[in-house]
Amino acid sequence: MKLASLKHGRDGRLVVVSKDLTHAALAADIAPTLQAALDNWTQAAPKLAALARRIEALSVETFPFRERDCASPLPRAYQWADGSAYVNHVALVRKARGADLPPSFWTDPLMYQGGSDTFLGPRDPIPFIGDESFGLDLEAEIAVIADDTPMGVDERTARSHIKLLMLVNDVTLRGLTGPELAKGFGFYQSKPSSAFSPVAVTPDELGAAWDGAKLNLPLLSFVNDAPLGRPDAGIDMTFDFGRLIAHAARTRMLSAGTIIGSGTVSNRAADGGPGRPISSGGLGYSCLAELRVVEKLLEGETRTPFLKPGDRVRIEMLDERGQSIFGAIEQEVTSNGR
Amino acid sequence: MKLASLKHGRDGRLVVVSKDLTHAALAADIAPTLQAALDNWTQAAPKLAALARRIEALSVETFPFRERDCASPLPRAYQWADGSAYVNHVALVRKARGADLPPSFWTDPLMYQGGSDTFLGPRDPIPFIGDESFGLDLEAEIAVIADDTPMGVDERTARSHIKLLMLVNDVTLRGLTGPELAKGFGFYQSKPSSAFSPVAVTPDELGAAWDGAKLNLPLLSFVNDAPLGRPDAGIDMTFDFGRLIAHAARTRMLSAGTIIGSGTVSNRAADGGPGRPISSGGLGYSCLAELRVVEKLLEGETRTPFLKPGDRVRIEMLDERGQSIFGAIEQEVTSNGR
Repeated sequence: MKLASLKHGRDGRLVVVSKDLTHAALAADIAPTLQAALDNWTQAAPKLAALARRIEALSVETFPFRERDCASPLPRAYQWADGSAYVNHVALVRKARGADLPPSFWTDPLMYQGGSDTFLGPRDPIPFIGDESFGLDLEAEIAVIADDTPMGVDERTARSHIKLLMLVNDVTLRGLTGPELAKGFGFYQSKPSSAFSPVAVTPDELGAAWDGAKLNLPLLSFVNDAPLGRPDAGIDMTFDFGRLIAHAARTRMLSAGTIIGSGTVSNRAADGGPGRPISSGGLGYSCLAELRVVEKLLEGETRTPFLKPGDRVRIEMLDERGQSIFGAIEQEVTSNGR
Repeated sequence: MKLASLKHGRDGRLVVVSKDLTHAALAADIAPTLQAALDNWTQAAPKLAALARRIEALSVETFPFRERDCASPLPRAYQWADGSAYVNHVALVRKARGADLPPSFWTDPLMYQGGSDTFLGPRDPIPFIGDESFGLDLEAEIAVIADDTPMGVDERTARSHIKLLMLVNDVTLRGLTGPELAKGFGFYQSKPSSAFSPVAVTPDELGAAWDGAKLNLPLLSFVNDAPLGRPDAGIDMTFDFGRLIAHAARTRMLSAGTIIGSGTVSNRAADGGPGRPISSGGLGYSCLAELRVVEKLLEGETRTPFLKPGDRVRIEMLDERGQSIFGAIEQEVTSNGR
């Protein structure tokens, strides 16, 4: 089934959305909000699935579904923990900063605790913060929502705690990242509010593209309508979602509604490797920082600027038939005055 | 007024507690949970204050208040951001790890995003995770709860967003801290669930001890009934709560119910300085790591072990008349089997 939260108050109004994202029905009788459904998922999920079947069968009253009416599926969450599962991305971004990549990064997942109290909606503007030196960037990612997950869960069992999947724009201020990480306490000011796709879907909606721990489809991102990247989220994912959840739950339990992110999706072929070199349109990136470092490495200088007011970002994933799975994150960068 | 959340479901049941912490009344007619009250603080606060006055006047039915029935005031929260305002603590702990203290640490606040989805109750056991090499430690701190706070708020305005204060035990696994921070993404596995005091209080309950941004009273901590520390939370606080909130809100707004921590309270006199040297019972610490590093520096070896199953921790703060302000955090370390 596919779920969304229409903008309403702090936590939105839960709706079940048709598979083709054209119409929806309120789920208020089952759970008023997605967090409420997740808090009681064992009871709520079968009822939501039954409503989804009635929507497909046209046997329940629906209304037109508009992605622009949506908040993020969880407009605020109790936990947002973002991994860096595509180690290629980390290697490239660190290269851009002149920082080494410790060998352990290939065997021990990186994960940071993100701010989760004020997510942007999928069509909300991205505030232009500070000035161009702040280096405003998008990061296109996959995220899963887990139910209550016990401390010490193993990788395989962790997979069974994945209840929903979404896309993410993990907005990043590159100019603040380096100095902030140097202090050792992780990201804080360099990670403003993230935005999620209009729709969250259960794993069964993904068919064979979901292998239980990885999503094997290209993640499309665009800046001002020009393609930025289309890396396959199933390729070069060094740590799958089972591993990321197990990492997060090593020393404490995870509460229902915990969002775990993949980190920026990145394929190595885009680096100019033998697969699909950048010059032939490899497009293995999901953020501007990677493109910039590859430009610098291959061409001697960066050509692509970071985001500025008026720039538009689009993040989407299509199924085998070319239909949008999660709806699209579409955000415009706006100066504070707007 | 003084507020608490009796254990009930995921978010507790909001009660107003008498000033002497002996009796309480349900606040269900005003707000079912503390988060619900914070979501609508402008309306809820005057009603909660009126109920508090009726409790003091004995003009409303109450029941005996028992700290052991309490969850943390926010059993789960949308944001827990912990500063390191007592830079002396950071300097000592880094000295113990052999890590330098960059000079900027005295001028630019350190802050990490903490996990907020599964707080321990003030009397819940602390799970003994892993083995003794994990270095289980307490950290006694002050925390404030903010209401909706705009991005870019200045230090002084930030003070007006402080609605409640609490005590915290920010449980830390010292054995995991060094390797984790070396990865650059901040704390994650090294910070298991924190516990908060039974009661959260509005600033006006603190009288002259609250100067608008600092709490000028000793923070008492004990391990197995032996005093560990009694540093004054108003002394050596390099960054006050106004500064910490402004730091947190620099690049994103903070949502109602955001918890901002002071970091481990620490007074320099305890280092063996001229004020109150350790040998005379200075007790400027709020964690075992600091005590251990001072032992090592002054006596050549550490004597005090980290926490192990069966150990008990107590954190409390008394007013000028010796009455407990927030109730006591009292936790026993238990192995997973118990």
